[in-house]
Amino acid sequence: MKKRIGILTGGGDCPGLNAVIRGVVTAAIIKYDWEVVGVEDGFDGLLNSEKCRQLSLEDVRGILPRGGTILGTTNRGNPFSYPVEKNGKIEYIDISESVIDRIKAMGIDALVVVGGDGSLKIAMELMSKGVPIVGVPKTIDNDLMETDVTFGYNTALETATDALDKLHSTAESHHRVMIMEVMGRYAGWIALESGIAGGADVILIPEIPFDIKKICHAIDERRKKGSRFSIIVAAEGAFPDGGKRVVKQNADSAHSIERLGGVGEYIAGELSGCLDMDVRVTVLGHLQRGGSPSTFDRCLGSRFGVKALELIAKNEFGRMVCLNGRSIKSVSIEKAVRKLKLVDPDGEMVKCAEELGIMLGR
Amino acid sequence: MKKRIGILTGGGDCPGLNAVIRGVVTAAIIKYDWEVVGVEDGFDGLLNSEKCRQLSLEDVRGILPRGGTILGTTNRGNPFSYPVEKNGKIEYIDISESVIDRIKAMGIDALVVVGGDGSLKIAMELMSKGVPIVGVPKTIDNDLMETDVTFGYNTALETATDALDKLHSTAESHHRVMIMEVMGRYAGWIALESGIAGGADVILIPEIPFDIKKICHAIDERRKKGSRFSIIVAAEGAFPDGGKRVVKQNADSAHSIERLGGVGEYIAGELSGCLDMDVRVTVLGHLQRGGSPSTFDRCLGSRFGVKALELIAKNEFGRMVCLNGRSIKSVSIEKAVRKLKLVDPDGEMVKCAEELGIMLGR
Amino acid sequence: MKKRIGILTGGGDCPGLNAVIRGVVTAAIIKYDWEVVGVEDGFDGLLNSEKCRQLSLEDVRGILPRGGTILGTTNRGNPFSYPVEKNGKIEYIDISESVIDRIKAMGIDALVVVGGDGSLKIAMELMSKGVPIVGVPKTIDNDLMETDVTFGYNTALETATDALDKLHSTAESHHRVMIMEVMGRYAGWIALESGIAGGADVILIPEIPFDIKKICHAIDERRKKGSRFSIIVAAEGAFPDGGKRVVKQNADSAHSIERLGGVGEYIAGELSGCLDMDVRVTVLGHLQRGGSPSTFDRCLGSRFGVKALELIAKNEFGRMVCLNGRSIKSVSIEKAVRKLKLVDPDGEMVKCAEELGIMLGR
Amino acid sequence: MKKRIGILTGGGDCPGLNAVIRGVVTAAIIKYDWEVVGVEDGFDGLLNSEKCRQLSLEDVRGILPRGGTILGTTNRGNPFSYPVEKNGKIEYIDISESVIDRIKAMGIDALVVVGGDGSLKIAMELMSKGVPIVGVPKTIDNDLMETDVTFGYNTALETATDALDKLHSTAESHHRVMIMEVMGRYAGWIALESGIAGGADVILIPEIPFDIKKICHAIDERRKKGSRFSIIVAAEGAFPDGGKRVVKQNADSAHSIERLGGVGEYIAGELSGCLDMDVRVTVLGHLQRGGSPSTFDRCLGSRFGVKALELIAKNEFGRMVCLNGRSIKSVSIEKAVRKLKLVDPDGEMVKCAEELGIMLGR
Repeated sequence: MKKRIGILTGGGDCPGLNAVIRGVVTAAIIKYDWEVVGVEDGFDGLLNSEKCRQLSLEDVRGILPRGGTILGTTNRGNPFSYPVEKNGKIEYIDISESVIDRIKAMGIDALVVVGGDGSLKIAMELMSKGVPIVGVPKTIDNDLMETDVTFGYNTALETATDALDKLHSTAESHHRVMIMEVMGRYAGWIALESGIAGGADVILIPEIPFDIKKICHAIDERRKKGSRFSIIVAAEGAFPDGGKRVVKQNADSAHSIERLGGVGEYIAGELSGCLDMDVRVTVLGHLQRGGSPSTFDRCLGSRFGVKALELIAKNEFGRMVCLNGRSIKSVSIEKAVRKLKLVDPDGEMVKCAEELGIMLGR
Repeated sequence: MKKRIGILTGGGDCPGLNAVIRGVVTAAIIKYDWEVVGVEDGFDGLLNSEKCRQLSLEDVRGILPRGGTILGTTNRGNPFSYPVEKNGKIEYIDISESVIDRIKAMGIDALVVVGGDGSLKIAMELMSKGVPIVGVPKTIDNDLMETDVTFGYNTALETATDALDKLHSTAESHHRVMIMEVMGRYAGWIALESGIAGGADVILIPEIPFDIKKICHAIDERRKKGSRFSIIVAAEGAFPDGGKRVVKQNADSAHSIERLGGVGEYIAGELSGCLDMDVRVTVLGHLQRGGSPSTFDRCLGSRFGVKALELIAKNEFGRMVCLNGRSIKSVSIEKAVRKLKLVDPDGEMVKCAEELGIMLGR
Repeated sequence: MKKRIGILTGGGDCPGLNAVIRGVVTAAIIKYDWEVVGVEDGFDGLLNSEKCRQLSLEDVRGILPRGGTILGTTNRGNPFSYPVEKNGKIEYIDISESVIDRIKAMGIDALVVVGGDGSLKIAMELMSKGVPIVGVPKTIDNDLMETDVTFGYNTALETATDALDKLHSTAESHHRVMIMEVMGRYAGWIALESGIAGGADVILIPEIPFDIKKICHAIDERRKKGSRFSIIVAAEGAFPDGGKRVVKQNADSAHSIERLGGVGEYIAGELSGCLDMDVRVTVLGHLQRGGSPSTFDRCLGSRFGVKALELIAKNEFGRMVCLNGRSIKSVSIEKAVRKLKLVDPDGEMVKCAEELGIMLGR
Repeated sequence: MKKRIGILTGGGDCPGLNAVIRGVVTAAIIKYDWEVVGVEDGFDGLLNSEKCRQLSLEDVRGILPRGGTILGTTNRGNPFSYPVEKNGKIEYIDISESVIDRIKAMGIDALVVVGGDGSLKIAMELMSKGVPIVGVPKTIDNDLMETDVTFGYNTALETATDALDKLHSTAESHHRVMIMEVMGRYAGWIALESGIAGGADVILIPEIPFDIKKICHAIDERRKKGSRFSIIVAAEGAFPDGGKRVVKQNADSAHSIERLGGVGEYIAGELSGCLDMDVRVTVLGHLQRGGSPSTFDRCLGSRFGVKALELIAKNEFGRMVCLNGRSIKSVSIEKAVRKLKLVDPDGEMVKCAEELGIMLGR
């Protein structure tokens, strides 16, 4: 009997997910002669047989240039803490046994979980209950340990830098301070790299609490030297020294709208109090998750997908594929999710930014 | 003695302004052997001799692909209503005489005013006081009469449609309602054309007050038929039927930050009350003004610049260059600024959208 | 019984074809409650029932951003001159009767032909034999009369200008003459507009035979004034004064490869004889037909599709949809295909280029 | 007295060079308070005092998004084998002594050489004669050892994949075989990565001589299974098994035009003999060197520039900056240029391609 592999994508969507799915499906059929079951909407799909369907080569044709995930995804559906309505209130219960039963019932021999921190932790728990799993790292913020980088980040950087290029001409034409808020709740990689690439004057990241007075001073110094505009890139998780994070809430358990008013707006308010200049805010938001994946992300996603199958073929479960320099390798999932990969405030990239004259808020 | 032409750019910046400036400078020097004086920061620059400088071919080299305006611009500086601080309060006074004196003092024989509605009205007033002026239309919203279209609009459309393409993949992957707020205070052209091109499900424009219940119903119908996501494009000036505009303030007279919370957020609030779906808002904002101008805008800007000089050569003052089909023509400025070019709620483009199954909020 | 509409795309592919198909299918189903039969591979598909299939809303979902045509196309298949192999030789015979029989057999009440010059002429012949037809103009070269422009051209311009921007940096860094050959066998629109937008120094179009000595002289003059590089854009159909066209053959009737060695290479050969500079050629070729259609092309294609159905609803056969300024109108196909829309060597756009200091080869 | 640093860029231009120059100049002035002398046109500029000028912060403002190099470059000018005309013939002589004298005369304390294989070998020779040098690797082909990757490659990949996306729609619409020839004389990285990312069906690289019959067979098999088109990506240095390279000549010592007719055309000729399908060739050529650098390349170039100064500050001469995983390090130039970094025909990336169903020509 043919081996049958399941694949699901969990957490926020990310350019390159389709390359992984295509890689898994194509290599499974062409190289291994296995079957692949696509599970829709992350772990949630494992509860619903209508959300599980066999994937053919035809199903993955032409999806390389497409953003998002053809399988759908959700931030809900943790089987160890599943939201159930009881007497008008939401309770969280453990339904992992029935999920595991369904995996067996579908004849799935191994599960490929494509996800970030959260999804991979769930994967480890399922693994500990006997489900053979391999992980594929997904994080648009680039905050996962044990892999140099993963797909999606490169595309998000392009979107952010392209936006900075666009804001530059308006900032310069109107002699304004333009603030751009980018993704990065805990790790400031997107702000830092796009800021260096986009010629930002100030970069604010969660790893370095900022001093608004120093920012104000720096912009004023620039103005005195003849630069009548300034560009600030702020990670959404950046926060003032002595203050606390002002990350917008994206409640996972409810049908929420995003509350506006993040760090960008906060900084704008402060700066317009201390500077005699127009200040404008742009929140890049969801645009960073979208778009056709870059070459790098398509290629990396494809290689990750193919490598995941190799791990299954070798029965190397509990492992996550990863990029090391130019090589695709694997690492234990446990090691990868232990902590987040943050920007080192004294590391080379921050120092590079400062030596380029960029102000880091400190 | 060589003829001397002045050129200034007024109002919000816009991709293609540099093509106009390059066109004027190049044709003046190469074709007519005239001099060109670049006036910085719109009409404001006419008050300050340091802001007026002769432009050479070297000054305009390589600026075609660049967004914004090398001359700078501002929304301030109307010489007929100039803000002056008096006793701690802002008063608006008429300083047009001194502006006209400065124009004469600089030996400017004719002035090219590149601007929208507001700048062109000021130009007409100066003209009535004896300054020979030709106008070049600039409006990113495409709301100027008497020209099929002007530069900047085409590039803004590309930015908006590209953003819609990006939001599509996230909307589809996460089964969300995504709302994108675009420019258009009085005219819904950007929302309408980018919405048609980007495959929007709902388009809301200032010309058609919307009924939130009908929008809610339409999205719910889509969901029932299997489309688990919806894309809404809303012009910033769209407003609910029976309600009033919720356009964000961009006070020109003060160093303001933009107040968040426009029509996009309003709709999101309403929809999340009546729909059992995640709703997210993206405000495209300043990104629409930025970026390298499209071929269309670079070419149109160049042709406008060259045509403006021809009008001067023929002493056809008080006229504005315009596009008619494939031809560059001219029209009286007065006629052009009489009223705004709005979307016809019963016109071909709206009907086209509706026949494509797009909901217009009514 | 429901009305049944056929649609086919003929000739070279072009960005925006899918917008037309989507427009026709969507409006037919949503607005008119008609059926649409998609005919694959142009007129060729009318000969083969396997190439005709009913199109649903699902079939056209998500195709707006995609280049090419989901129906396929071919340059072969003229039913009035159909290639048949006889005794090892190709003969061309009239099979129009059987094509017309098949159209009737499929119950097609009206046929939408999306095509250029050639396809529209075939459409007229079928029309004269009783097939009710409406035309939608398609030409990437922009050489069709009676419409300001059609879809595909705007996207092709973006590709060409983007390529010019790319070549600029290499030309400047290496102090080279870069020649870029673009599409345009008879009409030089792409070369002219992309050349103006891309800051070309020399533009060569079929409408103005060029004098290689004058080109050589112009580049040398530039060099003497300190510009150590030059950019030449040449339409593939440009040819030397007194010479004849050196358009590459793309035989339609045989399985050909393209013969290399067009006008770009010719000019390079001549220039490297008379200039002491490196000369390089880039042939843009098929890249100009590809890519996601621009907003303008997606919107125009959609409006054309919807308008074509309106013509059918009103029994206005023999007509072609067209763009006039900002309006969608219609015109008799006969009028549209009578002659090509060429660049006027003494018209505004050529004069504009020359006043911008661009050399037109004369 | 202030330390004075020289910087030159050698060999073919490459996106990201300006980021390196900006990084060196900015960090030198802001961090170290050193002076920087920009040397124009590679080593050639060292012979000509007019080609050496001090660079200020103003000189490098706004150059991050620009392709090419503001310093200019050339493939000529090796001081150890300098072309001199003697009696109508070109002779190559050693003028290194006078170059070294000029370096001393200008008071240059250390030289930053940004270049590939060739330029870095010259740098080593100058170093051995006493010039303190640090190297910055530049290769668009990604064939330099000892650095994971260098700037320019990422941008070139985007250009190649974007072109593949464009060709895809035409190939599919017309049922054609499309061949795209990309850069890569000795190393097939661009072909391999863009081919995987762009969904190519056949990838041909210099490291794996190809068998045209097997390619023909593979395409025919695809056709039989219903795929009526195929995409082939061929590195310019790919060559048939048993044959020899057909790389086009780009003679460095003469004012050459490129001879057309590379491997793409060769394959097209062979395939059209054995397949009953249209075959078309696109030579991507110089487009791959152009364009605004990607975020990755801008950021890497900036970090390389800053790191090069740190090496100088630490007197670590004879070393080249490099990327290792996420870290910027350094390595001896000697080690880096010993041999080229080629694709391993049995390595992970080639195997990945084959497991994705891509045919590698063998």
